[in-house]
Amino acid sequence: MITRMSEEESRALLRAGRLARLGCVADGGPYVVPVNYVFDGEFVFSHSLPGRKVDAMRAFPRVCLQVDELRDEARWQSVIVFGTFEELEGRAERERALGLLLSLFPRLTPVESLIAADAGAPAPVVYRVRVERVTGIREG
Amino acid sequence: MITRMSEEESRALLRAGRLARLGCVADGGPYVVPVNYVFDGEFVFSHSLPGRKVDAMRAFPRVCLQVDELRDEARWQSVIVFGTFEELEGRAERERALGLLLSLFPRLTPVESLIAADAGAPAPVVYRVRVERVTGIREG
Repeated sequence: MITRMSEEESRALLRAGRLARLGCVADGGPYVVPVNYVFDGEFVFSHSLPGRKVDAMRAFPRVCLQVDELRDEARWQSVIVFGTFEELEGRAERERALGLLLSLFPRLTPVESLIAADAGAPAPVVYRVRVERVTGIREG
Repeated sequence: MITRMSEEESRALLRAGRLARLGCVADGGPYVVPVNYVFDGEFVFSHSLPGRKVDAMRAFPRVCLQVDELRDEARWQSVIVFGTFEELEGRAERERALGLLLSLFPRLTPVESLIAADAGAPAPVVYRVRVERVTGIREG
């Protein structure tokens, strides 16, 4: 029996999660990639090397994030977030976001870490998703 | 170190997988949901109750499937399939696809099983994705 989760339950799952599947529209079609993220209650923060995903979100900032917790086939929860991509370009906001991400993902490689500021590496894109709507369903 | 997977490796992961994140375009924006599937080497088969996802794919059949195998943060593989939604409407092709799905997911509830043919339940939509391109990356 699949039931709808309340917005509060959906947001709690989003806050507990670390891995989302990010959906965006690239070259006019859907594009889905796994991303690590942090949700601070208002925004979902993430970062990326430059590439197709970032190009897509800059061109078309409507995005979707799907996060789930799967215990087994009969017991799972899944939430979907609809929101808008916002690139962080100011030094202070980039550092705050990267600090949040580094605190949860200490394994970020130097090339991914703005704080490491390797002059030869491409600068990572730091972004947030402004969360506009969260829905969730569960079974079990 | 993230490296590209060959097409053969990517297809092998797709064949081994059971759970994909399906991306489609709904109401002009991206929409991502988890789906169970079977890949027979040519098509990805799945099924769904009628709803937003099916409406979206009928209106705009370009879809994307993302499948991964995550051992830990440093060892993972992820593939992306680009393809086209095709609804199965003939009795024989629906039964073949549902048979494949039932053989892997015996827990399909009666409402989801065309074979059970509960007259009161909405008929499930049975579909396949024509696989046009598969790419993959891995780390570790």
